[in-house]
Amino acid sequence: MSGSTALARFAAFARSVAGPDAVIDDPRERQAYSCDGLTSHRATPGLVFVPSSRDELIVGVREIIRLGLPFVARGAGTGLSGGALPETDGVLVVLARLTRVLEIDPISRVAVVEPGVVNLDLSAAVAGEGLLFAPDPSSQIACTIGGNIAENSGGAHCFKYGFTTNHVLGLELIDPTGELVFVGGQSLESPGPDVRGLIIGSEGTLGIATTIVCRLINQPSLRRTLVAYFDDAVQAGDAVSEIVGAGLVPAAIEMMDRPALVACEAATHAGLELDWGAALLVELDGPAEEVDEGFVAVREALAAAGARSVWVATTEAERERMWRARKAAFAAAGRVAPAYIVQDGVIPRTSLPRVLAAIGDLARESGLEILNVFHAGDGNLHPLVTYDPSVPGEEARAEEVAAAILSLCLAEGGSLTGEHGIGVDKVCKMPEMFSATDLSVFARVRTALDPRGLANPGKLLPTPRLCGEQAGRYRPHPLEEAGVATRW
Amino acid sequence: MSGSTALARFAAFARSVAGPDAVIDDPRERQAYSCDGLTSHRATPGLVFVPSSRDELIVGVREIIRLGLPFVARGAGTGLSGGALPETDGVLVVLARLTRVLEIDPISRVAVVEPGVVNLDLSAAVAGEGLLFAPDPSSQIACTIGGNIAENSGGAHCFKYGFTTNHVLGLELIDPTGELVFVGGQSLESPGPDVRGLIIGSEGTLGIATTIVCRLINQPSLRRTLVAYFDDAVQAGDAVSEIVGAGLVPAAIEMMDRPALVACEAATHAGLELDWGAALLVELDGPAEEVDEGFVAVREALAAAGARSVWVATTEAERERMWRARKAAFAAAGRVAPAYIVQDGVIPRTSLPRVLAAIGDLARESGLEILNVFHAGDGNLHPLVTYDPSVPGEEARAEEVAAAILSLCLAEGGSLTGEHGIGVDKVCKMPEMFSATDLSVFARVRTALDPRGLANPGKLLPTPRLCGEQAGRYRPHPLEEAGVATRW
Repeated sequence: MSGSTALARFAAFARSVAGPDAVIDDPRERQAYSCDGLTSHRATPGLVFVPSSRDELIVGVREIIRLGLPFVARGAGTGLSGGALPETDGVLVVLARLTRVLEIDPISRVAVVEPGVVNLDLSAAVAGEGLLFAPDPSSQIACTIGGNIAENSGGAHCFKYGFTTNHVLGLELIDPTGELVFVGGQSLESPGPDVRGLIIGSEGTLGIATTIVCRLINQPSLRRTLVAYFDDAVQAGDAVSEIVGAGLVPAAIEMMDRPALVACEAATHAGLELDWGAALLVELDGPAEEVDEGFVAVREALAAAGARSVWVATTEAERERMWRARKAAFAAAGRVAPAYIVQDGVIPRTSLPRVLAAIGDLARESGLEILNVFHAGDGNLHPLVTYDPSVPGEEARAEEVAAAILSLCLAEGGSLTGEHGIGVDKVCKMPEMFSATDLSVFARVRTALDPRGLANPGKLLPTPRLCGEQAGRYRPHPLEEAGVATRW
Repeated sequence: MSGSTALARFAAFARSVAGPDAVIDDPRERQAYSCDGLTSHRATPGLVFVPSSRDELIVGVREIIRLGLPFVARGAGTGLSGGALPETDGVLVVLARLTRVLEIDPISRVAVVEPGVVNLDLSAAVAGEGLLFAPDPSSQIACTIGGNIAENSGGAHCFKYGFTTNHVLGLELIDPTGELVFVGGQSLESPGPDVRGLIIGSEGTLGIATTIVCRLINQPSLRRTLVAYFDDAVQAGDAVSEIVGAGLVPAAIEMMDRPALVACEAATHAGLELDWGAALLVELDGPAEEVDEGFVAVREALAAAGARSVWVATTEAERERMWRARKAAFAAAGRVAPAYIVQDGVIPRTSLPRVLAAIGDLARESGLEILNVFHAGDGNLHPLVTYDPSVPGEEARAEEVAAAILSLCLAEGGSLTGEHGIGVDKVCKMPEMFSATDLSVFARVRTALDPRGLANPGKLLPTPRLCGEQAGRYRPHPLEEAGVATRW
C-alpha cells in the first residue's frame, strides 16, 4: 500500500471511530502544525489526528501502527528542539483535547491526568488542597504534561525539586507496537528496571502516554526572594558555589549577565539596577522558620562572594516583579535585535566563570550581542544569541556562535541540553557527547521497543541519513545483528 | 567447546592477567559462595573470579563473554532474594576487592567509587566534609554500593531521601556484550532516555558497574526521634496518614506491632513499653529550627490519631537505643522460633490497617507467630513469619503464609518487593504483578542489551523453564520476532 493510500485509509478509519472533527486533512490547516517552538525546522504533516478521549487515542494509534505509518505526538507545540516536527508521510497525533484531570488523591498526594492537561492547570486544580505539581518550565501556562514527560522538563525551580521524572510516578503507554503497557506505579519504587524512567525524556520515541500518575507536593508556606548584584560574572559564579557549598538548597538560583539585565529592565521596568556585571535572583521556599533561617545564610554567602548591592522583595508584588523581569529575557532579546537563537546547554557549576568569559569573547569576535540567562544552581545556560536576519551572513554567524557555545559546554564535561531536548535540533551533535557504544545502547533499547521505527523517527538518535558520516560511528553490536538466541 | 572446557580456559586466562589469587576453583572453596542472604536457594558456582582492579574486571568479563559463559556479579552477598545465586556452569564475579573511593568532590558533592565499596565506608569517607551517602539498607555495614545499584536499595530513611536511583548520578557499565558504556553523568539530568535508571534495580541482568558516581548530601545538623505507642495498629496507621497528610516529611517512620515490640525488647532491653498494640518510631532530621518545628507538628498528629504514650529521645544514646531495638527485629525473631521467613512487600499507606488485620488472621489460622516491622512511611512491610523446622510441615506452612501475605499486598494494588528485589525468590510471581505486555517490555529491553542471555540468567524475569505455564503468558512481540528493519 502506498503512503498516501495508507493515510487516506487512516483518515476514513479515524473519522468513523472518532468523528469528522478528529481528522484534519486540508493542506492549509495541516500547515498550521508544521513546526513547534523550533521554527527553523518545518514539515507539513501528512495528516493530523486529534482524538477526544483515551479510547479514541488508543484505537487510532493502533490503526496507524497497523498501517505502518510513522507518527509524531504533539502536545501544545511549545517544545524548542523540534521534537514535535511532523512527518510529511505520517500522522501527527495531537493530544490537546485530552485535558481531563481524572483523579486527585490528597492523602496519597497523587493526581491522575490525561496527557493534554496543561502543566499550570494541574497545579490550579490541586491548589485548593494546598498542593502543586512541581515541574515549572517557562512555558507552563501552555505546555502539556505529556510534553513534559517527552522532554523530562525542568524549570526555574528544578534545582530544589528535580525534573519531571521525579514527579511522574507511573503512566500507561501505547507503545510503538500498539501494546498498552503500564510502567511505574503509585510510588517511585517498583520492582525491576525502571522502564518509567526510560520513557520519561525519550521525546516520543518509545510511545505515547495515555494516562499519567503525577506526584504532588505541598505548596510552600513561605517564599523569600532577592536579587543580588556583582561586579562581574566570576563573583556571581563564586556566590553560587558558596551557597551550594554551604548546603543551602534554594528553590531557584537564576543568573543574568549585564546585557540580560539591561534588556530585561528595558522590557519590564521591574526596577533592576543596571550598573553591574551580573545579578543573581535567589528564592527560598518551604516552612517559614526554615526559609527565614536559610535567607540569613544566603545573604551571608552572597556577601562573602562580594555582592555589592542586594534587593530583597518585601511584598509578593515585588517578588512577582523580580520574576517577571527574569522571565522576560526571551521577549527582551527581541528588543535588542530582530531575531535571536536560544541555546540550551549544561556545564558543571564550577566552570561557570570560565564559560561566561568565553561566551563574552565569542560575542566580541562575532559582533553579535549575547544575553546570558542561567539556571545557575544546576549549571543550565540559556544564552540568547541575537542577530539581524536582514544583514547578509549574520544568521549563519549566529548559528556558528550558538554551536560554539555548545562545544564549550561539552569541552567542560557538560551536556548538549538541560531542558529543551535533542529533537531534530541537536540530533547530529549526539556523537559529540556520547560514545559509539553509549549510542548503541540507546539504539538497541529503541529498536527493542519500536522494531519498525514508527514512533517519532528522525528524532533523538543520529543516523547516517540525517547526519552523514558522523552518525556512522555507532552501529548495532555484531551479537545483536547475529540475533543469537537468549538462554533465559 | 564444552562448558567445562570454557571454564578451564577462563581460569587459565584470569590467572595469567590477574594472578593466581583472582581465581577460586577448589570445589570446597567455591561452595562458600553458593548462596547470598537467601539461604534457601543454593548452587555452587562453576568458577569464582575475584578481580582486584577495574582493568582486571573488564578484561575478565570480556573473556567470559567471548567464551559464552553465563556470569553472576556478587558484592557482599547480603541480598535477600537470591540475586547473586551462582550458575553451576558459569562464573561468579566477586567485586569485594574493588573497594577504592577514587574521588571526593565536596563542592559538586559527588564521590566516584568502585563497585565493591561498602555502603557505610563511603559515608565514613566523606563524613569529614559534613556529607553522607543517603541510601541506608539495614545491611549497610556490609553491603556494597554495586549491590545497592543492582537492587535499587532503600532503607529506613528512604521515605525522605529516596532510593539508590536518587543517589547514583552515573556509572560506567560493562554491558553483557562486553562493551564499556557510560550512563548518566554528574547530574540527574542527561539527554535522552534514562538508561542510568534502567540499569539501577536491574539486579545484575544488564551488566556490571565498574565505576560509580554517587551523589552526596549534607549530614543533618539535628535529628530528633521518638517512639509513640497505640492501642492497635489501626490507630498507628491513622497516625502515619495524619503525619504524611499534614505535609510533614520525617526522615523515618517505622512501625512495630505487638509481637515485634515484645521480641525486640527481649533482645535489646532498650526500654520499649510492651503493653500496646503497636508503636511508631518517628525521626526528623535537617536544620535545627525546621526539625524543632516539625517535631511539634508530629507530636500533634500522633496525639490526634490517639497515641497513648510517647517516649522522646533526649540524648543521642537514647536515640541509638531506639534504633537498636528497631533494627534488632531480625535477630529478635530468632529468639521467638528457631527459624523465620522475612517477607518484603509494599502496600498503599492507606491499606495498612486492613493488611495488618489480615496478617493477624493468617497468624491465628496457621498457628505461627508473625512479627511485623514496617517502613510505614512508604508502606514497605517486612513481616517475619517464624516457624520450627523440626516440626513436620511447619516450614511449608510458613512458606504458604509468606506467599499469602504477598498476595494480600498485590490485592491492595501494592508491590511484590520494596527493597529486597525479585532475584530467584519471586521471579515466578512477576506475572501476578505485571501484565504480559508489561513483562514483554522488560524482556525486549533485556534482550536488546543482552542478546545471548549471559548476565545473571534466571533472575528477575519469569521463563517457562523456571516457572512453567505461568511464564508462558508473555512472549516477545510478533513484530520483534519478525525482525522488521527500523527506518530511523
